[in-house]
Amino acid sequence: MSAVSTSTLSDLYATRAKTLAPAQSWPEHEGNMISLAYGFAAPELFPTDDLLSATAEVLAENAAEALNYGPTYPGLVQFVVNRLRAQGTPAEVDNVLISYGSSQVLALLPQVFIDPGDVVIVEGPTFMGAVRHFALAGARLMTVDIDDDGLDIDALEATLRDLTKRGRRPKFIYTIPTFHNPSGTLMPLERRRRLVALAREYGVLVVEDDAYGDLYFEDPPPPRLSALDHEGWVVQVGTFSKILAPGLRMGWACGNRDIIQRLASFKLEGSSGPFLTRMVERYCANGRLEQHIADLRVAYRARRDLMLAAIAREWPPDVRVAKPEGGFFVWAQLPQGLSATALLAEAEKHGVTFVPGTHFYADGRGDSAFRLSFSFVPPAHIAEGIARIGAAFRTLG
Amino acid sequence: MSAVSTSTLSDLYATRAKTLAPAQSWPEHEGNMISLAYGFAAPELFPTDDLLSATAEVLAENAAEALNYGPTYPGLVQFVVNRLRAQGTPAEVDNVLISYGSSQVLALLPQVFIDPGDVVIVEGPTFMGAVRHFALAGARLMTVDIDDDGLDIDALEATLRDLTKRGRRPKFIYTIPTFHNPSGTLMPLERRRRLVALAREYGVLVVEDDAYGDLYFEDPPPPRLSALDHEGWVVQVGTFSKILAPGLRMGWACGNRDIIQRLASFKLEGSSGPFLTRMVERYCANGRLEQHIADLRVAYRARRDLMLAAIAREWPPDVRVAKPEGGFFVWAQLPQGLSATALLAEAEKHGVTFVPGTHFYADGRGDSAFRLSFSFVPPAHIAEGIARIGAAFRTLG
Repeated sequence: MSAVSTSTLSDLYATRAKTLAPAQSWPEHEGNMISLAYGFAAPELFPTDDLLSATAEVLAENAAEALNYGPTYPGLVQFVVNRLRAQGTPAEVDNVLISYGSSQVLALLPQVFIDPGDVVIVEGPTFMGAVRHFALAGARLMTVDIDDDGLDIDALEATLRDLTKRGRRPKFIYTIPTFHNPSGTLMPLERRRRLVALAREYGVLVVEDDAYGDLYFEDPPPPRLSALDHEGWVVQVGTFSKILAPGLRMGWACGNRDIIQRLASFKLEGSSGPFLTRMVERYCANGRLEQHIADLRVAYRARRDLMLAAIAREWPPDVRVAKPEGGFFVWAQLPQGLSATALLAEAEKHGVTFVPGTHFYADGRGDSAFRLSFSFVPPAHIAEGIARIGAAFRTLG
Repeated sequence: MSAVSTSTLSDLYATRAKTLAPAQSWPEHEGNMISLAYGFAAPELFPTDDLLSATAEVLAENAAEALNYGPTYPGLVQFVVNRLRAQGTPAEVDNVLISYGSSQVLALLPQVFIDPGDVVIVEGPTFMGAVRHFALAGARLMTVDIDDDGLDIDALEATLRDLTKRGRRPKFIYTIPTFHNPSGTLMPLERRRRLVALAREYGVLVVEDDAYGDLYFEDPPPPRLSALDHEGWVVQVGTFSKILAPGLRMGWACGNRDIIQRLASFKLEGSSGPFLTRMVERYCANGRLEQHIADLRVAYRARRDLMLAAIAREWPPDVRVAKPEGGFFVWAQLPQGLSATALLAEAEKHGVTFVPGTHFYADGRGDSAFRLSFSFVPPAHIAEGIARIGAAFRTLG
């Protein structure tokens, strides 16, 4: 189709569409390069046979409803509610919205909460895939650092106090308390309690991204923030991406009913698809999902151990690496004077890639750290990838 | 979860979210009532075996890509492009966006084009499921009537001329030229040519809703508006809902590349799901979709004929009913003095329901007509439903 003169057409755009946001891009697979960059799921662990069985069951028993127009399957909402309740979150059906992955909820939240200039508090480092949606909606981002126990609650309290003095009330605090992306940290119970208390005291919403909470390798983590909140100050964002399959694009938000209704009204396409919501529910039923998660814990723990053992063997001892108790990531902090960007350039020459820490800060910091993912590449590649980074360290050395 | 005081929480909402749009509702199935209301697909015609085969093929051959993070499957974009080109629309890959049904595109269009107060021209009658999105975005709706040949182009030209005199330039014209919902009308080629020429002359976009274009019962319809446009003034909105299955939620927009990029950037969730886009493409490949559409044409034509024969037998002769040459609907125009709302109330007492014409006008008119759908209910129920409406006519009469 040949183009109309752009100036003529662009007169028609609404104000909000005059400028074009950058498009999402996807990695290209590059020959011999080992990628420790992507927080993707392990493809060889996908439960393909059970997903096919679930599809067959739905098409045999419920094709008329699954394939016609209709709402998000209420059975899937109920399944998520039951799961949340089993984890201690007092959810009811009208507290839950099924979404197109957690990414859709993270994109809808600023529609509901952000007018340009509104303050949002984010962690440093954090998952910028979420934060970029807040920024695009015009949020003014304030970063509060994390330490080995997740978000620094003293620093958060000081920030909230300071903002209050200046007459500013943040709209929400975006946090990943359990197996943090990218740092792998786990927030202890006492901090969780203080965080929820601060939310209530200052009248600020907490957005709890719980993408990794089910993937613990040792003991189960402390209660979710959504389980500690009894007044509706926490919105939990969850997903089937890490515990089932990202490609199905299925997630949820759980929170105050009034917020859920608003998220639903900005979810322009309406339901989450009668077919896919039935298929996912059918897969999850009868304990299949819980058994699969148990298997994933074992597999991902082995990959973490493999990665940490290789790091201990191959890297200089002054690179600081904590042991994540769950999730997908190892966060490496470099000794003074080393740049993650420089290391990455060298590492790529050695045939391995990762994500430098600058990609995880809203304020441009982060070049003294980087993120490794042990979730996506097969075990044999993990050790080789770590060895190649070790070689890059020695070259820079 | 108990509720926080609503006033405290509502302080946090963005301006755009202070008021809550009405939620989508879904019909409840009611015992013995025959519904000729819904423009749903015939459930017994769903190709469930082939959909299961397609799923099995994708999971056997492409599970790693289909189930992980990734873009909309490019093969589905290419399939839609090839189909559009075969229909005469000069589409390239960057002219097409895969969407969550056509309803998502119809909801995204006002995001890209409508500032509050902007004028949008709609048909009278029209598909209000689309138009309500335009209204929610603040569009000022102007209705141009249709006649037996679809949108009245003389009236459209007069409206455009009048608006221009008053310094107003409409953003777009929303039209369903082929097997119109609700009227079933088919716009002849000459009108199509004039419509596209007017769009160019007045610098107004045409949104062509082509939901039913493949479901012709006699000859193929004239070229799509998107095939007559060579300058990017037409955005075609298409869907797999009528030709495959609504529950899969899969559709597309085809138009100027610059518009497609903007629609994509307001499609907050990003891709349309690697799994589902691969599954639909796999189903469609090897001629399966085209064979299925050929079968649907035969089945829906038989239902139309059944409905028209029953109407001729059972209804008063002064009810005006045209013969639709495709699509899902029969539009009935009542003799002077009869109200569709009153007829509906009586018909429901007789155990049959339909949609009164008032549901299809943006300006409150329409009580002299109503819409019947022959797509959803099984053939045996069509004749019985028409007979019950005939009984309602006699009771009123």
